[in-house]
Amino acid sequence: MKYLSNYTQYKNVLQKIADIKYASAVLQWDQETYLPKNGNDARGRQIATLNELAHKLFIDSKLEDLMKELLLSNQLSDHQKRNVTLSLEDYNKSKKLPSTFVRRMSETVNKSFHAWLNARRENKFSIFKNPLQEIIELKKQEADLLGYENHPYNALMNDYDKGLTTTIVDKLFSDLQPQLSHILEKITDQPSTDDSMLHQHFDKTAQGDSGIEILKRMHFNFDAGRQDISEHPFTTNFSCKDVRVTTRINENDFSNMLWSCIHEGGHALYEQGLPDDQYGLPLGEYCSLSIHESQSRLWENCIGRSLPFWKHNYGLLQQKFPKQFQKKTVEEFYAAINKVQPSLIRTEADEVTYHFHIMIRYEIEKLLIEGTLKTKDIPSYWNEQYKNYLGVIVPNDVQGCLQDVHWSHGSFGYFATYSFGSLYAAQFYSSIKNIHPNIENEICQGLTEKVWDWLKNNVYEHGRYFNSEELCKAATGKVLDSKYFIDYLKNKYLQ
Amino acid sequence: MKYLSNYTQYKNVLQKIADIKYASAVLQWDQETYLPKNGNDARGRQIATLNELAHKLFIDSKLEDLMKELLLSNQLSDHQKRNVTLSLEDYNKSKKLPSTFVRRMSETVNKSFHAWLNARRENKFSIFKNPLQEIIELKKQEADLLGYENHPYNALMNDYDKGLTTTIVDKLFSDLQPQLSHILEKITDQPSTDDSMLHQHFDKTAQGDSGIEILKRMHFNFDAGRQDISEHPFTTNFSCKDVRVTTRINENDFSNMLWSCIHEGGHALYEQGLPDDQYGLPLGEYCSLSIHESQSRLWENCIGRSLPFWKHNYGLLQQKFPKQFQKKTVEEFYAAINKVQPSLIRTEADEVTYHFHIMIRYEIEKLLIEGTLKTKDIPSYWNEQYKNYLGVIVPNDVQGCLQDVHWSHGSFGYFATYSFGSLYAAQFYSSIKNIHPNIENEICQGLTEKVWDWLKNNVYEHGRYFNSEELCKAATGKVLDSKYFIDYLKNKYLQ
Repeated sequence: MKYLSNYTQYKNVLQKIADIKYASAVLQWDQETYLPKNGNDARGRQIATLNELAHKLFIDSKLEDLMKELLLSNQLSDHQKRNVTLSLEDYNKSKKLPSTFVRRMSETVNKSFHAWLNARRENKFSIFKNPLQEIIELKKQEADLLGYENHPYNALMNDYDKGLTTTIVDKLFSDLQPQLSHILEKITDQPSTDDSMLHQHFDKTAQGDSGIEILKRMHFNFDAGRQDISEHPFTTNFSCKDVRVTTRINENDFSNMLWSCIHEGGHALYEQGLPDDQYGLPLGEYCSLSIHESQSRLWENCIGRSLPFWKHNYGLLQQKFPKQFQKKTVEEFYAAINKVQPSLIRTEADEVTYHFHIMIRYEIEKLLIEGTLKTKDIPSYWNEQYKNYLGVIVPNDVQGCLQDVHWSHGSFGYFATYSFGSLYAAQFYSSIKNIHPNIENEICQGLTEKVWDWLKNNVYEHGRYFNSEELCKAATGKVLDSKYFIDYLKNKYLQ
Repeated sequence: MKYLSNYTQYKNVLQKIADIKYASAVLQWDQETYLPKNGNDARGRQIATLNELAHKLFIDSKLEDLMKELLLSNQLSDHQKRNVTLSLEDYNKSKKLPSTFVRRMSETVNKSFHAWLNARRENKFSIFKNPLQEIIELKKQEADLLGYENHPYNALMNDYDKGLTTTIVDKLFSDLQPQLSHILEKITDQPSTDDSMLHQHFDKTAQGDSGIEILKRMHFNFDAGRQDISEHPFTTNFSCKDVRVTTRINENDFSNMLWSCIHEGGHALYEQGLPDDQYGLPLGEYCSLSIHESQSRLWENCIGRSLPFWKHNYGLLQQKFPKQFQKKTVEEFYAAINKVQPSLIRTEADEVTYHFHIMIRYEIEKLLIEGTLKTKDIPSYWNEQYKNYLGVIVPNDVQGCLQDVHWSHGSFGYFATYSFGSLYAAQFYSSIKNIHPNIENEICQGLTEKVWDWLKNNVYEHGRYFNSEELCKAATGKVLDSKYFIDYLKNKYLQ
């Protein structure tokens, strides 16, 4: 009985901490959707207080003792043991960061996020420079506090995908780069695609309605979530029964709403599918951000940019936007949404050139954290790399190094997971097609249940039981291999 | 220096506790406006955790020592001293409630709120009976834990208006009741008013837009607040720079939106006017709920139901709703919005009969808390009293004892403040008219700045410096006297 009651105690503490973290997430969701502008300062301190508090409660040494005792007891079920092991890992990591550091980070992030918004508004990197510098200094300190082998950036990437190192990423990117360049060359040899149909005027309300309908068709449960509008689309959750996505709507570009909706929808399905009885515990959390991104990419690219998907769903768009789509075939639509062309904005990039955007950011972050690149030199370095990798000229900072929210949020070490996500997605989808050879015909009829089921059984339900690599192996029988992604691209673009 | 740094420490602790309470308020606001239905259980526990935590941090004996030391030091400014004195009072009250009790109350409230919603949906008091019984038992325990003189209900009323007792309320209501009955009799002798113009079809979006415009004209600052839709209108705030009102819109009854908008707007102006530099401290909080209600009532009744106000603002309504209002004069509109008639629903009652609704609730709560009335007998007692006081037959529980949210929230001892609010409002408005004899002519031209200024100087800015009685005396030169309200009614309805 003793160990059962101790496990309950462990669970109670963890769940209360989760309550506070989720509360903080509600405040952040509100900040990006509905907060009146003068409310921002108080909101910043409220979030900082909750984060500091959650951290304080977690690094309590009594919790450490309890967890160690539980692990020694040998009376835990496999799942209970996994929970406690992971919590102890988190604990050991968290206690390396003093509460004052956590609060300072939270407050600096709030300040720098607003500096970033202003810098974008004024199109001046200089407005963002000092707060960014402060964030970078804090991230360097964080890496030192957490400890690392070989490169300080490893400590930061670890936050998003446990075990990811510069060695792994460098190798993957150096493999990937020539292959992608080759594919891109072949594509640019072909005649250019006309995607002007996506750049007409699309009514805001009708766009919002189609987004909601597409989310429903993707199995997003609106009793356990909602969609709102924000400047930067994101997914957040306050339990697996309250998962919120946001989208943005551009009246002159249908792609914006469409891809943010399907992308965030993929993330949201993952969160809605996590085991409810593990609320607040590691097994109720996602595996890693790479795997999270695989879920958004699988729906966005493997499915959402496929012809079978639109064979069923294009009718919805034609009905909502007859003027824009009635005279265009589904094949023309398919071609338009798969136009490949080097461009400036990461979130609007196609599947092929997308990874060059990531490589540039990864490289910059690595250099910033190791101290080789100075904050003030970011714009010139950025612009140079865009010319090298993508052959495009960056006309200003808003379309250049000010385009992403991540640095203002202190999210250094995040970007690589976007590329890894695409790779995992391709490998997962290849497994799904192997098991269900008829799946594309089913998708043509609007049936995506088997995809969803496979993801539930192989990804969602495991929570954090596996790390990315283990999950990939358990789900597909193999470790991550970029050939699935390259094959997917060749098959799609070079046939 | 020592006391300055101690005061800073006191302030830091109080402000962090405020951060948590405001975070809890954000979660509650979201619960009533945007929460997807399956998210409710997790939300209940998240709010309970925050409330428990705020309470735990506050009842720390180190804070008590700090406050006592500060008060003994004699080196605080008058305002600082008042803050610490009030906090110590709050502390002494709070520490009487164990944290487990606070959590249990919070969880029971969440459960009973949903039982109440279900009971309303099914129109069955029986669904609400047991959770309500649980709440009542907890409120009795709360009264015992807090301690009281004469009547346990005093301990509960004290939460909403410090110093309010059954002796005071009984006396006021027994004075008021015959006078109101007399006025009501005189009014019902006159021919009945036609208010059918308010019961046509009014487009939802146009109603929402007019509400926002009216709030702007009342000086509500949308940079420091917003308006959303909820089933039960309320005002909440997360600092004086983030004050949120909600309204409800009934397409077949214009009154619903109009009065909830102006009423909540009055509350909101008070919150927006509280001193910003006192964030999280007593002087940054409202005086009492009676005074809070005086602010909503002053705008709703003294101004919002006056002819001068509509002489300026009726044009807006005519423009938004030409079909409904173009052919009706402002005098007809004024008559319609001031129709006096005994009715079933408190929130829809006119200014005269409103107080009978309050007297009935006050009486029931008093009897429930002293144990003389059983929970199961509420419906029959309710219906009997409605016949006695108002001469109306209650056809079902939704229009009877299930109409108010208060009991499900555990808010026992709240209702009397609604009547006191009206009385304070009349007395304040009489003072304003004395000082600014030309004010009604100004209001005819849309100028309500002098009203707002008077409220800022005499109410908002003081925070909790005074209690209700002291504030009334400081603002009007006299203690609360019901004659101002009675004179106001006679002047309006019997001339």
